[in-house]
Amino acid sequence: MSRHKIIYDSDPGVDDAMALVFQALHPDIELLGLTSVFGNATIETTTRNARFLAGRFAAGVPVAQGAAAPLKRAVPAPLARIHGDNGLGNIAFDSTCAAPLDARPAHRFIIDTVRAHPGEVTLLAVGPLTNLAVALAEDPQIAPLVKQVVIMGGAFGTAGVLGNVTPAAEANILGDPDAADRVLGAAWPVAIVGLDVTQPTIMSHAYLASLRERGGAAGQFVWDVSRDYEAFHEQSAQLAGIYVHDSSAVAYVLAPDLYTTRSGPVRVLTQGIAVGQTIQKPATLPVPAPDWDNRPACKVCIGVDVPGVLALYERIICCLPEST
Amino acid sequence: MSRHKIIYDSDPGVDDAMALVFQALHPDIELLGLTSVFGNATIETTTRNARFLAGRFAAGVPVAQGAAAPLKRAVPAPLARIHGDNGLGNIAFDSTCAAPLDARPAHRFIIDTVRAHPGEVTLLAVGPLTNLAVALAEDPQIAPLVKQVVIMGGAFGTAGVLGNVTPAAEANILGDPDAADRVLGAAWPVAIVGLDVTQPTIMSHAYLASLRERGGAAGQFVWDVSRDYEAFHEQSAQLAGIYVHDSSAVAYVLAPDLYTTRSGPVRVLTQGIAVGQTIQKPATLPVPAPDWDNRPACKVCIGVDVPGVLALYERIICCLPEST
Repeated sequence: MSRHKIIYDSDPGVDDAMALVFQALHPDIELLGLTSVFGNATIETTTRNARFLAGRFAAGVPVAQGAAAPLKRAVPAPLARIHGDNGLGNIAFDSTCAAPLDARPAHRFIIDTVRAHPGEVTLLAVGPLTNLAVALAEDPQIAPLVKQVVIMGGAFGTAGVLGNVTPAAEANILGDPDAADRVLGAAWPVAIVGLDVTQPTIMSHAYLASLRERGGAAGQFVWDVSRDYEAFHEQSAQLAGIYVHDSSAVAYVLAPDLYTTRSGPVRVLTQGIAVGQTIQKPATLPVPAPDWDNRPACKVCIGVDVPGVLALYERIICCLPEST
Repeated sequence: MSRHKIIYDSDPGVDDAMALVFQALHPDIELLGLTSVFGNATIETTTRNARFLAGRFAAGVPVAQGAAAPLKRAVPAPLARIHGDNGLGNIAFDSTCAAPLDARPAHRFIIDTVRAHPGEVTLLAVGPLTNLAVALAEDPQIAPLVKQVVIMGGAFGTAGVLGNVTPAAEANILGDPDAADRVLGAAWPVAIVGLDVTQPTIMSHAYLASLRERGGAAGQFVWDVSRDYEAFHEQSAQLAGIYVHDSSAVAYVLAPDLYTTRSGPVRVLTQGIAVGQTIQKPATLPVPAPDWDNRPACKVCIGVDVPGVLALYERIICCLPEST
């Protein structure tokens, strides 16, 4: 099969970094570029981290800096208690190996790259969706040229959770709800990997320790970068392990059969106490809903083969053969 | 044990009627009164139906007429395609047996009755929550005098559904979202029986036919009143049976152990495209949420012993001994 041509739009971020290593090592993925966005940390921090990650794990892959703030709102506070002050779990890293920065802003890089590979590019977006919304605004014609948009974000109430940063909102979508509502309503195929499937997917302490033992430099990095992140999960959710957020979106690109999906248009609330909530009208709901009915259907992940996802990640980090 | 003293606030309504028969026949329930509210049909229709139901199944129980419209909004259109033009599945009934109407409006009846039985009254509300909100506004001191408020309404995203009349709203709550937000925030113990547990609880065609066969006049009435209602479920949800909405709230009063609950404050969205949505902040969510945090915890039903609920209803309608 042809390799997945991916632009990875992220706000690294501990789990963003774990997902980047996953992509960089996977033989079926061709990373066309990394684009940075504010979110888990400031744009300066996430861009520096993206450059470091590219330099260390994805040599030659361009990095373009993206939005510093949401379309219409103030920039949210960095999630330092989750991702560390440096956005990468406070690990020490050698920024001299950082990749150079592309001269273009992220949205222009996205437009140019999509136009250079019509019908082939997967936009894998695991932070606030500002860059994608700006690209759409600048060049609406790119939408039908994109192969698919795969998003880590949102929560749809199929597993008891509607949010993680408010009772109704997931962090990436709340980061820029206006952008998210535009991106989820545009004329490109969208698949959403939200908390419904990322919170049930848990890398246990023992699993992470096994990656460190067996995964060489990549496994050691995954271990190192996730120490504070695991401590946060332990403290906040009494979880002996970590939720698998961004890497689940990579898994969806590679192996969509690991997920069950529900089809229907999705809106994002942009005002009120539930701002940032994602709400799908399932195709099976037999009522008119004018605020949804004129928008394209998205695929929302509502079920996941957890052992399958964990085995896939382990196989790539530890360079195991497919049959293992 | 002492019997449950219940004021049944409803908008009959097919499933409201099925739940009234359930209560009227149950030896552990003492019906203190029926109060009507707009909702499934106009207030004129629901009041006439409440009087008919009392006259036929609950002789001597007072009936008080309640609100004709929501606190702040226009009255919604009757759900005639679900409950029939007469609100009772278009069955013929003899209105000469209708109970007389109490002189007091519903909210005053509620206040007087709660004050007459401090700490003893269960408010069982299965329509829009306007009457309860008006009672609270008139006499806020009743809240701590109420034993519990049990509500059929809302949906909390623990079973894949957020609404039935919009992608985000359940019909009773959407009927008066302003009232619901007040009622769920008042200083009385609230338990909410929403779509999370009422849609998984299904009375099949065979189950209903068995009630008709074995349940005497009550079983025949349940069968007759639910014919159009079942046809609606068949047509709209491809369901060979009916969801058990209002009777589930009765089952919760009688046997709360049939349900698992989640604790935490609940808000109702009163504006925007998701108006009418109910959103709980689970006690386990470790983030500040100022719009929730100053409000009392409600119990939200998130799991149900379906066979247990169906057996309980059958036992009462068919007058079976407890061991059956």
